[in-house]
Amino acid sequence: MPKTWFDTAPKLIDVAMGRSPADTVIRKGRWVNVHSGEIIPDTDIAIVEGRFAYVGPDASHAIGPETKLIEANGRYLVPGLCDGHMHVESGMVTVTEFARAVIPHGTTTMFIDPHEIANVLGLPGVKLMHDEAAGLPINVLVQMPSCVPSAPGLENAGASLGVAEVREAMAWPNIIGLGEMMNFPGVTFKDEKMLGEIAATQAAHKTVGGHYASPDLGLPFHGYVAGGPADDHEGTRVEDAIARVRQGMRAMLRLGSAWYDVAAQIKAVTERGIDPRNFILCTDDSHSGTLVQDGHMNRVVRHAIAQGLKPITAIQMATLNTAQHFGLERELGSITPGRRADLILTSDLTTLPIEMVIAHGKVLAENGRLTADIPAHAYPASARDTVKMGRKLIGKDFDIEAPKGANQVKARVIGVIENQAPTKALERSLTVTQGLVEMDRAQDVCQIALVERHRATGQVTNGFVSGFGYDTDCAVASTVAHDSHHMIVVGTNKDDMAIAANKLGEVGGGIVVVSKGKVLALVELPIAGLMSDERAEVVAEKAGRMVEAMRHCGCSLNNAYMQHSLLALVVIPELRISDIGLIDVTRFAKTELFA
Amino acid sequence: MPKTWFDTAPKLIDVAMGRSPADTVIRKGRWVNVHSGEIIPDTDIAIVEGRFAYVGPDASHAIGPETKLIEANGRYLVPGLCDGHMHVESGMVTVTEFARAVIPHGTTTMFIDPHEIANVLGLPGVKLMHDEAAGLPINVLVQMPSCVPSAPGLENAGASLGVAEVREAMAWPNIIGLGEMMNFPGVTFKDEKMLGEIAATQAAHKTVGGHYASPDLGLPFHGYVAGGPADDHEGTRVEDAIARVRQGMRAMLRLGSAWYDVAAQIKAVTERGIDPRNFILCTDDSHSGTLVQDGHMNRVVRHAIAQGLKPITAIQMATLNTAQHFGLERELGSITPGRRADLILTSDLTTLPIEMVIAHGKVLAENGRLTADIPAHAYPASARDTVKMGRKLIGKDFDIEAPKGANQVKARVIGVIENQAPTKALERSLTVTQGLVEMDRAQDVCQIALVERHRATGQVTNGFVSGFGYDTDCAVASTVAHDSHHMIVVGTNKDDMAIAANKLGEVGGGIVVVSKGKVLALVELPIAGLMSDERAEVVAEKAGRMVEAMRHCGCSLNNAYMQHSLLALVVIPELRISDIGLIDVTRFAKTELFA
Repeated sequence: MPKTWFDTAPKLIDVAMGRSPADTVIRKGRWVNVHSGEIIPDTDIAIVEGRFAYVGPDASHAIGPETKLIEANGRYLVPGLCDGHMHVESGMVTVTEFARAVIPHGTTTMFIDPHEIANVLGLPGVKLMHDEAAGLPINVLVQMPSCVPSAPGLENAGASLGVAEVREAMAWPNIIGLGEMMNFPGVTFKDEKMLGEIAATQAAHKTVGGHYASPDLGLPFHGYVAGGPADDHEGTRVEDAIARVRQGMRAMLRLGSAWYDVAAQIKAVTERGIDPRNFILCTDDSHSGTLVQDGHMNRVVRHAIAQGLKPITAIQMATLNTAQHFGLERELGSITPGRRADLILTSDLTTLPIEMVIAHGKVLAENGRLTADIPAHAYPASARDTVKMGRKLIGKDFDIEAPKGANQVKARVIGVIENQAPTKALERSLTVTQGLVEMDRAQDVCQIALVERHRATGQVTNGFVSGFGYDTDCAVASTVAHDSHHMIVVGTNKDDMAIAANKLGEVGGGIVVVSKGKVLALVELPIAGLMSDERAEVVAEKAGRMVEAMRHCGCSLNNAYMQHSLLALVVIPELRISDIGLIDVTRFAKTELFA
Repeated sequence: MPKTWFDTAPKLIDVAMGRSPADTVIRKGRWVNVHSGEIIPDTDIAIVEGRFAYVGPDASHAIGPETKLIEANGRYLVPGLCDGHMHVESGMVTVTEFARAVIPHGTTTMFIDPHEIANVLGLPGVKLMHDEAAGLPINVLVQMPSCVPSAPGLENAGASLGVAEVREAMAWPNIIGLGEMMNFPGVTFKDEKMLGEIAATQAAHKTVGGHYASPDLGLPFHGYVAGGPADDHEGTRVEDAIARVRQGMRAMLRLGSAWYDVAAQIKAVTERGIDPRNFILCTDDSHSGTLVQDGHMNRVVRHAIAQGLKPITAIQMATLNTAQHFGLERELGSITPGRRADLILTSDLTTLPIEMVIAHGKVLAENGRLTADIPAHAYPASARDTVKMGRKLIGKDFDIEAPKGANQVKARVIGVIENQAPTKALERSLTVTQGLVEMDRAQDVCQIALVERHRATGQVTNGFVSGFGYDTDCAVASTVAHDSHHMIVVGTNKDDMAIAANKLGEVGGGIVVVSKGKVLALVELPIAGLMSDERAEVVAEKAGRMVEAMRHCGCSLNNAYMQHSLLALVVIPELRISDIGLIDVTRFAKTELFA
């Protein structure tokens, strides 16, 4: 991390005035000026101690014998890109490996919400990622998770955070605000904890992240806004973006691996003429495959431009607008004196090839390849071995007993809907054999189990799920199980389910596909059961094999693994499973397995 | 002051949701939405506890039996106007009387820099205005003066502020940043005090005000920017505004009583297409006459619109842009939930008649008349009787002795230039009679004296001035004497000079015009010798009589009193007077009276 502007000021002034040489001078670029909205040719940049000292027509006075010279040759000088809201855990890698993966794509600032690790490890988990972030050569600012557990009373997560923890975290140097306030009914009903967390954040003059995941723009929306959240990335329609901006929130438009919310909403600017200054681009969730194959914020900016947005406007939405939102505009988000020297060189503002990436004044990547040495970050033992099952499971643990004397039962079944986060609450007639309810491949009904893994209770909660299409003996288990991150096991065969669960217990978490007693694919996620300590490329490859293995077992669902990992997300309707049982998320209450 | 957003949140949510009634509902206005850049018809507003709770199509759910109803009848709902940088002392009234004068013009937020009182009373003077500001029904935020004295070594002001004082003040609730950093050479030469004050401000995450009063946009400008100032209101040309915005500063465009810097610079937006978001409107200095007769920020916004700016853009420059610059966008500057309920009703966005003014949810003015009761603010004894002359002066105190034996001398004479702040360093041959140098009405050379008034030394520093045109026996004295605010006496007759000086000593400061032993006009300014405790109307009337009296004495100079009060401003070239002598401000050094 560069020293503060004021600690560097004497050096910056000396370099700007020509009294001492710059560390680096970049010559003759086109300055993409996000403050003025101009593109200014023939611009030189002088950098010292990781900050911009001079940006103007001629920096030759700042060139000394030791100054590193970079010839822009008329290429564009673009501020390093900022991701306004994202979860590192979605990449299933550490913050360090995430940074290694996205730096070559031009990302130099990430606003991360370590919501997943918080559900497993609580405040110490947040602190681990916070501290890791601080050591990186780019800017990684942390939003303190607001909703842990996501659904108090409906699940028991690995930890619980409240007002006291938020207050404590607000004093950490890299905490930039409160993470997405997902409990929007809580806000509108004045839940004390939710309002207390918002108050602690506002009192610290930091930014309250929003998450209003409802299409209702009536009173509940107005009530939520009045409660204090300052942004929202859950809009999907153009009217969502407009409503948020009108109410004084920042509209965060999201293009993640599975979120496509930019195209519809950006019409607010391109067609409705809304002032673009309060729009911010973000990814929210990127899988490692996306990072490795498609890009990161460069992908989002490119996409926004492809929707008809002016390149300079799209770049503002990924630089200055973001910095301003978090109160950091004097620190980053533009190529101007005093700011951290974060920039990209590119020869085309539309296709945005990322030819050089500089952060804190250092060249980190060239032509899509990381050139800087960023050592892997070792997580401590406290973040490992977090899959505490208490015992080995056996097939019988997944037995579902029928009500006494029944030959046939009507069971509640979680119905997966392709490409959608909500599920359907189905009912299916299932046969009973020797007192146990049987799965039914013909109806595509197999079993789902939530295996408690935070407190070693050995508890298994069983239920039924439909929609994956598994047509052979198999089981898929994952300790990525939003948001409480117990273990979700889905399978057509109970022995395979036990093997899958035990395997994850053995390796400390991850995702595994088992068929007929054999492990077909395994993604080890030993850090909190959420993150690998391997490179994004390796994780992407393993995840690819996992998807392939699921297909091999008959699952043709798009993004099947994501559906799997969301089946315990007891805040999104209609039917979910948690460690306390089957949850009816239309009523926010536990329900019975048999109708 | 309304309670914080988070303390009000439960009420705001209840009102927004229709669970409890608003204090006030405004019905059917056109919402001037500075976030989206739209004008949205048929908008209702619900206000509770001084903050906006709901802004949308229908607030009827928030109307209870006690709710005050205001019918907008299609009029525009404009956020209360913000003055981004100004000195209350220029109006020669208290903060309270200034507020009383400008509220009917639609000003609900002022960012004030109490630089003048600081030069007289030091930090306690700043604190007095800070505390007075906090009690007002509008938002008055204070910039901590940065350059007291303005020219250390060239003058002795009534007080001195430094890094320790800045650090102390940054913890006061109403301090919003550092006042204009006028010592731009100090910044570029890394003056420890200047950089220390900037550091203390940045460390407190507050805004550093700038003041780069030079047309040189070369290296000194770049050096200044690298030092940290975040805005500048000293630009006069379109290239000044563009340069500041490109470098990441806010361009503050100024229309004061005697500053006309908007028209030229606004072309950056209207003709050059520069993004307007980093432009801010301000007044800097308004005389009470301007406030009484012409207006305040409404005058500036109107003027900007008359230059071809879109009304919504001009309004953004006096609302949201300003709030954002000072990190207050979640607190004021727009009509959106959670913000302080500050707004104007107007039936025309171009001529901008101010028909109703509401601040903190209360109606303060209607149709140009203050309707709220804002009691006068009494300053303590410590702010009075600050004109400490130590003794009565007599005519002889103004004698200027010639070098021994001379019959004729070549004297350095301060040359006033009409309508300009800089002076000329003239040389004039003057006759010596009985060892004393004589004034010369034919050459329009009369005497100027700086009377020390902070430490009761009884010291009088004499010199010559040309340009006022006084053609009769007279003297004009003022304790408004930028920036150190001693007393400046200009006169053609030494006895009149003594009478004028003694009169100000008697009344505790002000401005007085004396001719042939008689007081023609007197503006009493008993608070620090800078401010009246009367109403702006009264002060404006007295100031008018003062101008008339000066004319009566033969002075036809435009804005003569302003020229008078600036003759000790030892930071602007070429020749000035201070308590240490005649100052050559091209060399920043003392010079001799005789060439």
